[in-house]
Amino acid sequence: MTRIPDTALAALASFDDGSLSPETYLRALLERCEEVEPTIRAWSHLDPEAALAGLSDTPGKGLLNGLPIGVKDVIHAKGMPRTCGSPIYAGAVSTVDAPVVAQARMAGAYAMGKTETTEFATYKPAPTHNPAAPGHTPGGSSSGSAAAVAAGMVPLALGTQTAGSVVRPAAYCGVVGYKPSFDLIEPSGVKALARSFDTVGVFARSVADAALFAQAVTGLSLLDAAQGAEAPSVIGLCRSPVWDNAEPEMQAAWDDLVSALRGKTAMLDVELPSAYGLACDAHPRIMAREASQALSYEWHSHRDLISPQLRDMLEQGMAVSERAQSEDRDMIATLRHRFAQDLGDTPILITPSAPGAAPRHETGTGSPEFNRLWTLLGGPCVNVPGLRSADDRPVGVQVVGPIGRDADVLRVAAWLADILS
Amino acid sequence: MTRIPDTALAALASFDDGSLSPETYLRALLERCEEVEPTIRAWSHLDPEAALAGLSDTPGKGLLNGLPIGVKDVIHAKGMPRTCGSPIYAGAVSTVDAPVVAQARMAGAYAMGKTETTEFATYKPAPTHNPAAPGHTPGGSSSGSAAAVAAGMVPLALGTQTAGSVVRPAAYCGVVGYKPSFDLIEPSGVKALARSFDTVGVFARSVADAALFAQAVTGLSLLDAAQGAEAPSVIGLCRSPVWDNAEPEMQAAWDDLVSALRGKTAMLDVELPSAYGLACDAHPRIMAREASQALSYEWHSHRDLISPQLRDMLEQGMAVSERAQSEDRDMIATLRHRFAQDLGDTPILITPSAPGAAPRHETGTGSPEFNRLWTLLGGPCVNVPGLRSADDRPVGVQVVGPIGRDADVLRVAAWLADILS
Repeated sequence: MTRIPDTALAALASFDDGSLSPETYLRALLERCEEVEPTIRAWSHLDPEAALAGLSDTPGKGLLNGLPIGVKDVIHAKGMPRTCGSPIYAGAVSTVDAPVVAQARMAGAYAMGKTETTEFATYKPAPTHNPAAPGHTPGGSSSGSAAAVAAGMVPLALGTQTAGSVVRPAAYCGVVGYKPSFDLIEPSGVKALARSFDTVGVFARSVADAALFAQAVTGLSLLDAAQGAEAPSVIGLCRSPVWDNAEPEMQAAWDDLVSALRGKTAMLDVELPSAYGLACDAHPRIMAREASQALSYEWHSHRDLISPQLRDMLEQGMAVSERAQSEDRDMIATLRHRFAQDLGDTPILITPSAPGAAPRHETGTGSPEFNRLWTLLGGPCVNVPGLRSADDRPVGVQVVGPIGRDADVLRVAAWLADILS
Repeated sequence: MTRIPDTALAALASFDDGSLSPETYLRALLERCEEVEPTIRAWSHLDPEAALAGLSDTPGKGLLNGLPIGVKDVIHAKGMPRTCGSPIYAGAVSTVDAPVVAQARMAGAYAMGKTETTEFATYKPAPTHNPAAPGHTPGGSSSGSAAAVAAGMVPLALGTQTAGSVVRPAAYCGVVGYKPSFDLIEPSGVKALARSFDTVGVFARSVADAALFAQAVTGLSLLDAAQGAEAPSVIGLCRSPVWDNAEPEMQAAWDDLVSALRGKTAMLDVELPSAYGLACDAHPRIMAREASQALSYEWHSHRDLISPQLRDMLEQGMAVSERAQSEDRDMIATLRHRFAQDLGDTPILITPSAPGAAPRHETGTGSPEFNRLWTLLGGPCVNVPGLRSADDRPVGVQVVGPIGRDADVLRVAAWLADILS
């Protein structure tokens, strides 16, 4: 049996030195899928023959040359079903690629399959299990992407985040999840949920792999930053306005984090002004309002096929007044504008990725409460794995910064990952 | 033959008082199409039986009860083709409604057909002719929507604006075109071109009709404002940073405008700071860059079916550096933030809608240079018809304001339309 390189960059190096071919790599990954997928259920669509055909169609050059990617099932990938985790779209096959998938193909990658999503990237769970914490949820909404990468079935996967749908599942599954700055990755061809927040993000097994993938689909120079790994002169530690909801395992992990960082850099406890606490409260209202607009067709034509919990959310959204929506948008624009100024000399923060480790599988996909603020602010967020709960489930912290500071956030994330690994 | 009410509100009043049924209205409009469509060519898809079936499916309540709409061919309308004006999508039939179409249906409207667009809402002309200026272009990219409304074939139509694709064709065809604040109308289900600018807008035969349509698909209170028609205490007249490119017919129309306003309100000549002139120059660069991202799939998979002029634009976009894109985005955010402050006590402006009247049909669709700044600023823009060139072609001026001031802009537009009619 072929030894599977642990990261995308390691696979590329093996392709380069001739010790591994992209096809042998894919066949090894498919064997891995055969072994673990019946338990994990990360894929909504996985057809080995189609994956092999995708590989043979790649242009044979580019940053991702010969690498397979998983594509969250809210994103179009030509010739594959796109169900959005909803029976409304059962059997619907994409006739085009989303731009981000086309960009990955132009960089030499190919779609290995589609990964499970919660219903329209909201709350009704996917069938996926957490490879890093058996019996527990992988988180959501990008459940399958996080689990497929964590289980070693694919090195890279696309996800989306509107509340906490990249960072939280990455934290629960113990992998890297990178939600770039708002609008950094072209979002068309992705099922819309809430247009003020929807952001395409990536899952990987290292910070450098995540930077590589994002660089390939945006053209931004990110990989160099993620391979520098020099210590920042100062790092902000922000327990966040919702710290009261941190569970004991996160409180313990936070102490472990502070211990691990001691002597490595200057640390500054950052407490955000009260406006940021209000923003945490505003996020679910804005998301519900915009979701009720984005899902108008499904509401109008297929209401009976929408889950009760999503119907509730959409009804709450419809009840938000026009004035509240307008004021909320002003608030978002203002905070996005002033966040960098408010941070001053400590522009990059470390903050919890989730309330704790992954909850039990039957309880849902966990809470995005530790993600809402950062998604609203529109800046980059990178989950860094390495911390663990007493019973050995992954506990994640994320590195965040103001919109546009992606390279700096990735640089700090790579440095932190080295420390926590 | 049935007399066709001139506006959507007049048609609704006739439905209400029983003097006209929605079906009789539709049949009259279809007769009008039979008469003029062979010359105008506003529709990319018009199937009378499907339109009648659409009417019978309407829920029979709501603001637009029983009204047909035209849908620009970059927007999904279930069961109808969506070609985006490109051979790449020849024969592609939409399996869903875009949210804005679903919202119109929930308000009681139905899709009468699809209207012609230039290639992916860029520059390669549609076959459409200008009903108000024979031998001349209807403008673009929402060519068919403007022409169908101008020719009386449909009372309301949806368009999109990324540079000047609602306001300019409205100006050339002598109808009302309303580009709302950025992101006011849900944009998903619409073929993306440049995500910083793409905005869904509406065409109508009166400002009140445009407000009615936008209110129906957003829930915002806009109709009352457009029916008030009281004089503003002061109005800004802004010839704009590109006034040097105004043609003699616009210069003459501008003089006519000033004469018409004399004694009606206080007028203030507004000259914008130089940053706004730079923004005019930045818009095409940002649009080309984002279009090269949004059209990645078409570029990767169907390059030979893209027109030479669009290929040129996409190549220019790919050549824009990541640093320029990032600086441009900062500039957009800053100007959107400060525009209202810079306007001070004169928040609503009147400014040209286009360099002049519609150019000859064979020369293309005219220039969006008088639209780029306002689209970049993200605020509402309403073309107001009424002025004419010496040879009786429509010349348009637009009312514009800061993002979120849609009701105020519609109020001034309604007042101005009364004066110019």
